[in-house]
Amino acid sequence: MTVTPGETLRRLRERKPLVHQITNYVVMNETANATLALGALPVMAHAPEEVEEMVGLAGALVLNIGTLSSHWVDAMLLAGRAASAREIPIVLDPVGAGATSFRTETAKRILDEVDVTVLRGNAGEVATLVGVEAEVRGVESIGAGEDAAELARRAGETLGVIASVTGPVDHVSDGQTVLSVSNGDAMLATVTGTGCMSSALTGCFLAVKPDQPLEAAAEALAAFGVAGEDAAREAKGPGSFHVGLYDALAALDPETLDDRARIG
Amino acid sequence: MTVTPGETLRRLRERKPLVHQITNYVVMNETANATLALGALPVMAHAPEEVEEMVGLAGALVLNIGTLSSHWVDAMLLAGRAASAREIPIVLDPVGAGATSFRTETAKRILDEVDVTVLRGNAGEVATLVGVEAEVRGVESIGAGEDAAELARRAGETLGVIASVTGPVDHVSDGQTVLSVSNGDAMLATVTGTGCMSSALTGCFLAVKPDQPLEAAAEALAAFGVAGEDAAREAKGPGSFHVGLYDALAALDPETLDDRARIG
Amino acid sequence: MTVTPGETLRRLRERKPLVHQITNYVVMNETANATLALGALPVMAHAPEEVEEMVGLAGALVLNIGTLSSHWVDAMLLAGRAASAREIPIVLDPVGAGATSFRTETAKRILDEVDVTVLRGNAGEVATLVGVEAEVRGVESIGAGEDAAELARRAGETLGVIASVTGPVDHVSDGQTVLSVSNGDAMLATVTGTGCMSSALTGCFLAVKPDQPLEAAAEALAAFGVAGEDAAREAKGPGSFHVGLYDALAALDPETLDDRARIG
Repeated sequence: MTVTPGETLRRLRERKPLVHQITNYVVMNETANATLALGALPVMAHAPEEVEEMVGLAGALVLNIGTLSSHWVDAMLLAGRAASAREIPIVLDPVGAGATSFRTETAKRILDEVDVTVLRGNAGEVATLVGVEAEVRGVESIGAGEDAAELARRAGETLGVIASVTGPVDHVSDGQTVLSVSNGDAMLATVTGTGCMSSALTGCFLAVKPDQPLEAAAEALAAFGVAGEDAAREAKGPGSFHVGLYDALAALDPETLDDRARIG
Repeated sequence: MTVTPGETLRRLRERKPLVHQITNYVVMNETANATLALGALPVMAHAPEEVEEMVGLAGALVLNIGTLSSHWVDAMLLAGRAASAREIPIVLDPVGAGATSFRTETAKRILDEVDVTVLRGNAGEVATLVGVEAEVRGVESIGAGEDAAELARRAGETLGVIASVTGPVDHVSDGQTVLSVSNGDAMLATVTGTGCMSSALTGCFLAVKPDQPLEAAAEALAAFGVAGEDAAREAKGPGSFHVGLYDALAALDPETLDDRARIG
Repeated sequence: MTVTPGETLRRLRERKPLVHQITNYVVMNETANATLALGALPVMAHAPEEVEEMVGLAGALVLNIGTLSSHWVDAMLLAGRAASAREIPIVLDPVGAGATSFRTETAKRILDEVDVTVLRGNAGEVATLVGVEAEVRGVESIGAGEDAAELARRAGETLGVIASVTGPVDHVSDGQTVLSVSNGDAMLATVTGTGCMSSALTGCFLAVKPDQPLEAAAEALAAFGVAGEDAAREAKGPGSFHVGLYDALAALDPETLDDRARIG
């Protein structure tokens, strides 16, 4: 196992991979700007007429069901199948799975019909998809009935994906190894869409490290967490924290990232 | 009448009510972040497959027609009827009523088919729905042909709602009592979606004070206005004001809010 | 030729024209806020039931295909034809033309069926529409196979529009005269949607200078570029630059704008 977030970030800024995102209306601007600040190129496209062509240009695909509707689900499946066929890594963010049947069913359907590489969600969402008891309110996870590391391991094992479960400490697992990521700041929970941003950045890291998705997923969370720590230092509240997060992502230093990343 | 914005805010932060918002594309991120900064939990969902289930989890529903289309109107009616049946308070923001027939008709249709608790709009929009002459340009109200306090009273009386008419001074009425709210800052008009934010925050206050919607609506505007005053103090322009608004909402102090609220 | 950005900006702030924008989900909030910060009034509306009525109230129409789908294209054509019939100036932003056939075809279709006044795009997008070789990745233009000034001239000539090709130096042409605009800052490329903002602001300037679209388009880019220069001075990264851009647009001084504008 080689966890080298600094090296991966350096490669990302060199190659500037295109990351195709079919995501929710609430965070589109935010995930695009986070992608760009990190050093990759975002593209948002959801029309059935173009998603297959667009994903063919991309280094990764990010599917996010935060404001899903049936047409958008169709587009996600279409893009997801095209990406699967071309072995382009895919991130699924099952926003709100557990809150409504439509979200739970849609997340399961995407997991069934698409070769999801990384499932990035909070404990409540992932627990729902694994079939574990969890308390979910709307799109916020209030808690999971199981230890988070074990939840990640079980999700990786059961769903055949890299499970990336974020929370105060993040856990990433392929069903066997579990990596914990202890970076980040409590202020990340005060801004909407930071979970979605972490999914987008997971796509960015996967695009340049497709053969080591476990490591890439953990590195992405560490990089995002370090940026969160930097942004929190100067923030007066959620508004200035949000702004500082983009500044911090752009200022992330590959040289010091390996030292600052707390991946265990 | 008990106007206690500080106490209501304290309760809101304790209970963290879920506020379901079916709103326009322009401000989704903004109203979600304002809701979160205040201390409640936002959820955006508009698919017919899930709106009834989602609103069942919520403490309030906010309907906003700012970028309406027929499918979204259907979703608003579906969610609105489900909320009505369960006596969940509903806020309607009739963005742009008076600008086009489609907006005017849609706002009227929602008022007809849904038990709207609070109608939150500017003078032009509300005047249109009451049938009073008003000059509207696009989604900006330029002026109303009638005194704003009387407009609020008439809207409350005629439409059978709490009318919350915002402007330099806000007026909230149940058709009899008229409360004026004199908080706020002129900079609020320099950022798009601050009206939509005030509707979202009205939903937040209603969720924890559902039995006193007149008071809750006025308190929400006072709290938002106080945050606006705080944000204006440090702002260099609309960009930094916008950022400061979230910081100020999160920093709102329940202890001093009653004193600072200018509700008459 | 009379290039007078200061005078045009003064008129714009006096008249506050309504600018109808049918644009992409990613940047709606951003282009609305940029329009408002400059001093005009934005309105977003895309329902077939209302676009013709709404555009009738507007001083300009901005069409942007950044997250297009067939329903939205229909709305753009409907609004565009209504604007053409009423001689309301139209800006087309062909986001991602060249990346997928759907985008290229849609941009061409709008150019065919609507009286586009100004085509505002990057070199790759415009080159695609003129039929020149270009390298495009997603929605980012990596380079054009032809000198940018000549590209603008050819686009103006071939497509019968004012071509406004933005890049490190912008070039605006009616097919004969080519104006270059050398304002701006490299940080503009670090925030998503700044190209879309420049299209929105082009609409604002056209609304108050409809008879001189070549000059209006160049003036809009100069004004936006000057604001970018001001914002860059204080920025710590893309997040604070983005915020500062709205502050700078609102603070633009008509008195000094003529001197600061580098239009050649």
